[in-house]
Amino acid sequence: MGKLARKVAIVGAGMSKFGVHYPKKRNPDLWVDAWLDAVQKTDNGIGPKDVDACYVGNFTSDLFNHQGHLGPQIADLVGLCPKPASRFEGACASSGIALRQAILAIASGAHDVIAVAGVECMTEQPTVKVTDALAAASDALFEYPAGATFPGLYATVASAHFKEFGTTEEDLMRVAIKNHENGVENPYAQMQKSIKQLMESKKKKCAERGMDVPDWKDEFDFLKSSSNMMIAYPLRLFDCSLVTDGAACLFLAAEDVAKKYTDTPVWIEGTGQGSAALSLHDRDILTTFTATKEAAKQAYQMAGLGPKDIQIAEVHDCFTIAEILAMEDLGFYEKGKATEAIRNGDSKRDGSLPINTSGGLKAKGHPVGATGAAHAVEIFKQLRGIAERNRQVKEKPEIALTHNLGGSGGTCVVNIYRV
Amino acid sequence: MGKLARKVAIVGAGMSKFGVHYPKKRNPDLWVDAWLDAVQKTDNGIGPKDVDACYVGNFTSDLFNHQGHLGPQIADLVGLCPKPASRFEGACASSGIALRQAILAIASGAHDVIAVAGVECMTEQPTVKVTDALAAASDALFEYPAGATFPGLYATVASAHFKEFGTTEEDLMRVAIKNHENGVENPYAQMQKSIKQLMESKKKKCAERGMDVPDWKDEFDFLKSSSNMMIAYPLRLFDCSLVTDGAACLFLAAEDVAKKYTDTPVWIEGTGQGSAALSLHDRDILTTFTATKEAAKQAYQMAGLGPKDIQIAEVHDCFTIAEILAMEDLGFYEKGKATEAIRNGDSKRDGSLPINTSGGLKAKGHPVGATGAAHAVEIFKQLRGIAERNRQVKEKPEIALTHNLGGSGGTCVVNIYRV
Repeated sequence: MGKLARKVAIVGAGMSKFGVHYPKKRNPDLWVDAWLDAVQKTDNGIGPKDVDACYVGNFTSDLFNHQGHLGPQIADLVGLCPKPASRFEGACASSGIALRQAILAIASGAHDVIAVAGVECMTEQPTVKVTDALAAASDALFEYPAGATFPGLYATVASAHFKEFGTTEEDLMRVAIKNHENGVENPYAQMQKSIKQLMESKKKKCAERGMDVPDWKDEFDFLKSSSNMMIAYPLRLFDCSLVTDGAACLFLAAEDVAKKYTDTPVWIEGTGQGSAALSLHDRDILTTFTATKEAAKQAYQMAGLGPKDIQIAEVHDCFTIAEILAMEDLGFYEKGKATEAIRNGDSKRDGSLPINTSGGLKAKGHPVGATGAAHAVEIFKQLRGIAERNRQVKEKPEIALTHNLGGSGGTCVVNIYRV
Repeated sequence: MGKLARKVAIVGAGMSKFGVHYPKKRNPDLWVDAWLDAVQKTDNGIGPKDVDACYVGNFTSDLFNHQGHLGPQIADLVGLCPKPASRFEGACASSGIALRQAILAIASGAHDVIAVAGVECMTEQPTVKVTDALAAASDALFEYPAGATFPGLYATVASAHFKEFGTTEEDLMRVAIKNHENGVENPYAQMQKSIKQLMESKKKKCAERGMDVPDWKDEFDFLKSSSNMMIAYPLRLFDCSLVTDGAACLFLAAEDVAKKYTDTPVWIEGTGQGSAALSLHDRDILTTFTATKEAAKQAYQMAGLGPKDIQIAEVHDCFTIAEILAMEDLGFYEKGKATEAIRNGDSKRDGSLPINTSGGLKAKGHPVGATGAAHAVEIFKQLRGIAERNRQVKEKPEIALTHNLGGSGGTCVVNIYRV
């Protein structure tokens, strides 16, 4: 990665409420919600006339909604035609790629301001078809015909991590518990209930119905019970992210025009992207995602920063084990040591390195093509000190990182931000 | 469009044979064929170690092959992992967009050399499913449920052009006849037979079988017969491009490193992209694609050139009427005047402005996601004087243009080249 010809900043960011919106809302409606939210969060206002191009991240509206060619559709809805409008795809890293390509396009001199969209409407399909569509991000020639859908692939990664580093089911559960606690504080999240609240509510229902009330003493008892069904050992239901409809919008601007839109731009200090063989069986190692290591290396190098400089991060917790891998592969902790940090509470909102204050994919939700852009929305808020409810990190952070994965680590985009 | 921070050139280009390859070959195999062909056409050699990133254009491997996430898959096959690898989509303009984004990425300073891929394997599906998959490039909420697939949408455009400018079925036929004549000269083309040859072969078959031999005097008689069935009035079978499997590969390099790979780089002088509402019913006009006009305006402006400077062009003839629209919307001819130029033979190989010397989508074939990159392969050859057989334009051209459409004009990418 060479040095960029000019700097780029995020000057506005917003998102739709994440959740189950179909059939009331589809990608076009969710996108308009996100656009309006981002306009409202751009200090000095912004409109279609300010925007030079529209970069849309979407995994597979093809399979979810029988709609390809999203670039012009999304652009047209907010009055951006006839400007350039394209779709970018890298499975669940699709809007991470859209964001990165927008950064490069502005740096190139071609455009000054770009609207980055992330959109995905998944609940038009029944769950079994959602799993099948998502499997198109794995290797369709080898993994898919063998029946290996994503919970199974990440279960393989988790099992390897268990064996190599002594990681336990409780370690995974701590990730879910923390992310649900953060989701409670995010009005845009799909799940705004802590696991303790869900447990208590379950107990209450049992009592109301005259059934035996389970004697769960804490969340771990609940999460080990049959209420948290096994999906693919060792991953249970609460280790998996949600099936979600949602959209996010980012306004990016070149350094020479950024101040027109806000006095406090969130600068992109570094960007990196890595790739790896789609199939797990083609990799040398299961407990490290080399795409993450490569993306992080490029981003740190461009930013002139290292893992120790990062004060807050949004990482790609499509499954709880993925958050643990990310904490290690990004260099925040040595290999096998992330679980210790999690036990210490380091990744909580008041910890030494808060991770997924948004609630993560686990509680905020995971509309796959929108996730990368939504990561940046949370970082925009945290660095500006405007995160809602009680989740704003107390000592307002200045340097942040986002980590967006595609597939079982076939793609990774890492960005570093500073305010 | 601002000025790019540095110049970019194509230093190598190649493609697979276009045709029906499934199940013997799929996207991965076709891509390797294209990569090896491009390596062989890069004067001083090039290899994975030289390439910084892989930009993949593909429309909907999701629907054709149940395979998304093509970036890492395509990169891995030629040893490019863990470098950045992404997929770009804009319906049939997908690899036009990949090429354009690669230009911007190199201009930004992020990368010096990028491999641009265009891939599509369509014949895994039966024709009815191909038509259905392609319809995902139209508006899935309004056009698709109304049963308007692409032949119908372009038939609407053709009918409007007939009404407004007196264009005739014979005018459309002249486009098909010319492009098939060019296809004869392209060893990579799917159809290497002229329409006259096809007519004679049909006559011969009738004679052999003891049937009445049709008294077709020329190609027009043949094309007006029931042998050329009506698909959607006024478009007949020979007005439609082919269903094709194929791949193309371009090596792009920054000006500071281009000379390492060749003494005669093909420089990108201008690039432009436009968009329009997906649905025809949302447009103000049916006989002009505003996305083409916008893309051309940007590209001419960046190049400091105009339509009169263009000496050869590859335009997007997904249907014969689309070539006529392109000739007008690109400014080569006034609105309604392209048909006169076609009648004069201006767009033939020996005409004043040769168009689609490759055979076009009509005869070379149209593996949708590969088409934009394949356009550039033909221009690379013509500007270098290495076009095969008898199709090299005699006075080797120096300035060329490619025009790549998505959907019924929802997306357009125009690039201008100089050697």
